[in-house]
Amino acid sequence: MSRFSLAAMTTVTVLGLGPMGHALAAALTAAEHPTTVWNRTPGKENGLNATVATTAADAISASPLVLVCVRDYAVARSILDTDALKGRTLVNLSGGSPEQARTMARWAAEHGIDYLDGVVMATTDAIGGPDAALFFSGPADVYETHRSTLAALGRHAQYVGTSPGQAAAFDASLQDMLWTSMSGVVHMFTLAKAEHIAPADIAEHAKALLGFFPDMIDLLAGQIGADHYPGDHGTLDSTAATMDHILDAIRARNLDNGVLSAARAEVQLALDAGHGKEGFGRLAAL
Amino acid sequence: MSRFSLAAMTTVTVLGLGPMGHALAAALTAAEHPTTVWNRTPGKENGLNATVATTAADAISASPLVLVCVRDYAVARSILDTDALKGRTLVNLSGGSPEQARTMARWAAEHGIDYLDGVVMATTDAIGGPDAALFFSGPADVYETHRSTLAALGRHAQYVGTSPGQAAAFDASLQDMLWTSMSGVVHMFTLAKAEHIAPADIAEHAKALLGFFPDMIDLLAGQIGADHYPGDHGTLDSTAATMDHILDAIRARNLDNGVLSAARAEVQLALDAGHGKEGFGRLAAL
Repeated sequence: MSRFSLAAMTTVTVLGLGPMGHALAAALTAAEHPTTVWNRTPGKENGLNATVATTAADAISASPLVLVCVRDYAVARSILDTDALKGRTLVNLSGGSPEQARTMARWAAEHGIDYLDGVVMATTDAIGGPDAALFFSGPADVYETHRSTLAALGRHAQYVGTSPGQAAAFDASLQDMLWTSMSGVVHMFTLAKAEHIAPADIAEHAKALLGFFPDMIDLLAGQIGADHYPGDHGTLDSTAATMDHILDAIRARNLDNGVLSAARAEVQLALDAGHGKEGFGRLAAL
Repeated sequence: MSRFSLAAMTTVTVLGLGPMGHALAAALTAAEHPTTVWNRTPGKENGLNATVATTAADAISASPLVLVCVRDYAVARSILDTDALKGRTLVNLSGGSPEQARTMARWAAEHGIDYLDGVVMATTDAIGGPDAALFFSGPADVYETHRSTLAALGRHAQYVGTSPGQAAAFDASLQDMLWTSMSGVVHMFTLAKAEHIAPADIAEHAKALLGFFPDMIDLLAGQIGADHYPGDHGTLDSTAATMDHILDAIRARNLDNGVLSAARAEVQLALDAGHGKEGFGRLAAL
């Protein structure tokens, strides 16, 4: 066995065996990492080829690398034994905000714990596979030490910076886009249904429209990076008129219009500030 | 010249030479349709190989097929000469709601005008090309008569139904998704910037995330079509928790949170109605 392969076989502990924690542990065992697991309520280790610890402290003591994946940072803190963790590396994959990640990193530093903050941008069934994206942030040397182990969690595991809140910031930004967009997708179906358009029919056109999104994202990234928002691909004035047409259609069917109305209100702020002839990206610099 | 080619050379009138009207007229002349144009303020016909009429009535009288593309339906009505239009086909490509389209169709019927309502889902530079989508609705025989001429406006010109509001309903639904999503995209950049993430860096990940949207759209279309919303790809409870994390991150940077807050409020309605264990598509059936 090569030295690289030996190095990859780090012993790992996973705290929290909800659906995501279970998937992470399964990916580690599939990659042949000796794995110790613990969950507050027992009996969640079904199907895992892992050692089951009786206490969180026992589980932590079993490995130099400890992953925690529970509901939120408060729960994570409540189960983490600082004495056991001292000198080990903690990777927190519980969901939280950048500010929570920064607070957690300070707490870890105070207790002599090497800390990486991580986020999972994948569904449980994608973990360990080619489509799973995970972001990690924290000290570069700590990430480097565990890079090959963390890569077992997903092909797109990547390091996004030394600032401990950076992974959560990437996550929050992307999830902001995702859930706002998903809200738009569902509202599209809602309005279409009210207008007697079948979900499958509008879905075909929606997917075609999605084809233009990558170019739009690049266009906006370029404009926001340059802080310059030419209106030659459409002005905020025209966007406001379009939104008003859509809102008319939504209101005519007595549907909830809260999300698009909020988007329209943000456009109005830009119009009131005199940006009507500029492009949509201007909204990022109000 | 074949009979098909002769049939395709219908004479066409375009009323309104704003950027979109100009692009439509250019596509018609490029397809060798003899074209007559008119605009309220003269001098907008630059670069068009078309006959310029002095009045709207003169322009209408020149062709059996009249396209109108102005700011909105009210402006369209203000320039349309009903005597001149009688017995001709009017295709309204001005932006409006399904209800406005239905009203316009009734008005046209009262005046003996064949009426198609149309929408353009394309930027001006795409008109006439392979990427331009246009939707038309109204009497099937009227569309059939002019199908080949209208196809000159874009490869994806298509008929979506006899109900005159149907094209505008497709448009409103798709634009609802588009502008809500765009709002999410710009807010992603705003939050990322506040967290010191470069636009180009977050853009790369956003485009990767987009890759999952077609499957999500199909999943939602299936669930909404069946009126059944299993939570096995994520529950509304977990979506609410995720949105709360994002909102924490947004508020921590004192950014506007109106759009995502409105989306979160809609999720709360579903939770309050007892749908927390169901999937996101349930929002289409509240």
